[in-house]
Amino acid sequence: MAERLVVIGGDAAGMSAASQVRRMRPDVDVVALEMGTRTSYAACGIPYHVAGLVPEVDDLVARTPDEFRNRQRIDVRLRSQATAIDTAAGAVEVRDLARDRTYTLGYDHLLIGTGARPVRPPIPGIDADWVAGVKTLDDSAALAARAASGEIRRVVVVGGGYIGIEMAEAFVERGCAVTVVDAAPQVLGTLDADMAERVRAGMEAAGITVRLGVGVQGFDDHRVVLADGELPADLAVLGLGVTPNSGLAADAGIDLGPRGAIRVDRRQRTSAERVWSAGDCATARHLLTGEDVFFPLGTIANRQGRVAGINIGGSYATFGGVIGTAITKVCDTEVARTGLGEAEAAAAGFEVVTAVAESRTRAHYYPGAERIAVKVLADRRSGRLLGGQIVGGQGSAKRIDTLATAVTAGFDLDRMVDLDLAYAPPFSPVWDPVVTACRQALRTFSQGRS
Amino acid sequence: MAERLVVIGGDAAGMSAASQVRRMRPDVDVVALEMGTRTSYAACGIPYHVAGLVPEVDDLVARTPDEFRNRQRIDVRLRSQATAIDTAAGAVEVRDLARDRTYTLGYDHLLIGTGARPVRPPIPGIDADWVAGVKTLDDSAALAARAASGEIRRVVVVGGGYIGIEMAEAFVERGCAVTVVDAAPQVLGTLDADMAERVRAGMEAAGITVRLGVGVQGFDDHRVVLADGELPADLAVLGLGVTPNSGLAADAGIDLGPRGAIRVDRRQRTSAERVWSAGDCATARHLLTGEDVFFPLGTIANRQGRVAGINIGGSYATFGGVIGTAITKVCDTEVARTGLGEAEAAAAGFEVVTAVAESRTRAHYYPGAERIAVKVLADRRSGRLLGGQIVGGQGSAKRIDTLATAVTAGFDLDRMVDLDLAYAPPFSPVWDPVVTACRQALRTFSQGRS
Repeated sequence: MAERLVVIGGDAAGMSAASQVRRMRPDVDVVALEMGTRTSYAACGIPYHVAGLVPEVDDLVARTPDEFRNRQRIDVRLRSQATAIDTAAGAVEVRDLARDRTYTLGYDHLLIGTGARPVRPPIPGIDADWVAGVKTLDDSAALAARAASGEIRRVVVVGGGYIGIEMAEAFVERGCAVTVVDAAPQVLGTLDADMAERVRAGMEAAGITVRLGVGVQGFDDHRVVLADGELPADLAVLGLGVTPNSGLAADAGIDLGPRGAIRVDRRQRTSAERVWSAGDCATARHLLTGEDVFFPLGTIANRQGRVAGINIGGSYATFGGVIGTAITKVCDTEVARTGLGEAEAAAAGFEVVTAVAESRTRAHYYPGAERIAVKVLADRRSGRLLGGQIVGGQGSAKRIDTLATAVTAGFDLDRMVDLDLAYAPPFSPVWDPVVTACRQALRTFSQGRS
Repeated sequence: MAERLVVIGGDAAGMSAASQVRRMRPDVDVVALEMGTRTSYAACGIPYHVAGLVPEVDDLVARTPDEFRNRQRIDVRLRSQATAIDTAAGAVEVRDLARDRTYTLGYDHLLIGTGARPVRPPIPGIDADWVAGVKTLDDSAALAARAASGEIRRVVVVGGGYIGIEMAEAFVERGCAVTVVDAAPQVLGTLDADMAERVRAGMEAAGITVRLGVGVQGFDDHRVVLADGELPADLAVLGLGVTPNSGLAADAGIDLGPRGAIRVDRRQRTSAERVWSAGDCATARHLLTGEDVFFPLGTIANRQGRVAGINIGGSYATFGGVIGTAITKVCDTEVARTGLGEAEAAAAGFEVVTAVAESRTRAHYYPGAERIAVKVLADRRSGRLLGGQIVGGQGSAKRIDTLATAVTAGFDLDRMVDLDLAYAPPFSPVWDPVVTACRQALRTFSQGRS
């Protein structure tokens, strides 16, 4: 009998691993179990579908079940829920939701790619029909339909993280009056407060009302109840972060790590033999602190899935780690970050120097030059670049990749200011904004010289 | 008497050095000699002024003589030409063009930042009034005025390098019929032929006629004479590259390097004591080959000027070298390159693997996703990334900085495919185009695994 890989979860991590194994091992039987009806769907595209920028929800599907079946001979089984794992026997119990039956599927290798789900704290009224979570493409289709119908005028987004501000943008695009509420004193908790303040200002400039430092106490008949009053809302959207789907693994006795994510090693192995995990349900190693972290992002899911697949396929690969790179936009404001923020750096034992440079995305005289603020953080002792944050107009945020690459390389500020980056008037000032920030930080070390 | 720095040339390299010295040494007497009437002008902005995108030519001036005088106490002397250097005596002979007199100026340090000038080969008729070189801001103002007047309909650009294609774009913006002629078999000789072909296609899609492999034999009464015929032209524009202004240095017995550029060491010292050089008139060390090269670009001029200034100011700095990063655009096509091309890599003794990935600048479903082609070159033995080239639509080219940083870091392809780069649908596909190219190149090494 052929060797068999069973993949639980038909999204980024699972299908990356499945595809990788298929490329390396034409002989292996690859089965992918997916609870829903779609594979390889881009949940990160949901806000843009709700906004009306992406016409059909199925446009968010990168590869359909039939494409996996026909082109890659991957046995994709939809509406199939793994309900138990027997690591000793090497078998998964599968619930076929369509046919309402249960069967056992043996595996030689198992990849758990069950992803994450939105957090839904037990706030009174949270289950009302006008309070929406954002999880599946079906949720997305329903929200988009309601937004398009014109019945939604006033939207309250609960949570000012990435999903929250992206959903805020979506409803601004739909012409709604949007308020974002967060119990924290700033939006985007992964940014330093000064940079988050720039984002808040950008959101307000786009007409979004931002209420910070105030928790939601309940949802009551189209009113969001706050500590200091109520906000009327045709719709409330939850953007309170996600938690890993690791219950199945935990029930099977597999070790969990931070935030309840499935603990994996550099090769994506779990604590159980022949059981691998990747993506939003798994931990990731932070390259700068060496610690396991929970960092649910589509890119990481794809990268980890690839690494797991290479290892399952019989070769050797390790995951290169994360440095916390993230990017988004809210209306005209682009945002990105990488590496350690001030609080993270302090927690990791670094004493940091920081600088914020305000510059332009193009030469000052070139039309369409947008504002860009770049913050860099470096270790005071070694001068090593530890992280960076960018807030600005169009053409700002993707420049974070330069900082991400430099942080990965372990460059110090001296190296940064002498990088051979690209310059022409339509693309950058002659001193690149990233370099300008590093020059400013360098002045801390050497008065006058920069 | 105060120590004196004399700077020859009031543009990027010279004024960067002067500013740096002023910051470090308030006591030093800083004199800057400039033949023309402006300081710190962006010659790279000329095409955009000619195009009409930059209304006034003085918008291209980053800092005026009076700003240098009043804010930095730099004694800027306009219309002042250095006519001889006496390195033994430590003195410069200065011709005051306005007052028609000559005087001698002693120096403790001398910085030669005389820049480069356009090549004008001895082609018959090249000095006709309808054949324009592009050098000074006054040239720019004259060309912009003629373009705005409507008298120019047919333009022939001689030379398909960076300046050539930027001037072609400028006259397309002005509504002219533009032909680019180059004796080489491709445009942009610093790109590999396959990537240059993509640029040519983009130029033709924008309505530019591109004639390759055909030299210009003469200019005769509004006709550009080619080996195989003639092209009528209201205006011919020369874009045949530049040559360093190193005659003054050579006459003083200072060593020259490749292409006649002033040879400098890592600290920007010339062969003469207390004489420094930086910018388009000087050599630069290539980080990958270790060789001195002539690479005249505004960014390098600024970086070298800064390094020279730090050293003149009494501290220590070395120039980080160049890796040949360059960027431009022609109409809707963006172009960038870094590191070694195929021919350069072969000449440097590398056996390369290459890959070209065709991707999109945004998630496939996000509106406004543009095409992007990324080529990467790596050393077959070590897997080390040696260079990259990008051709694509808006939002493509500045991604070259990721490759430039990685080339500088010495990353191999394995490291590249596991970089923690930024992803969100408005900014990138989930696998960044740069990474996709590296994955393809990696397949050369390991069939099936990528």
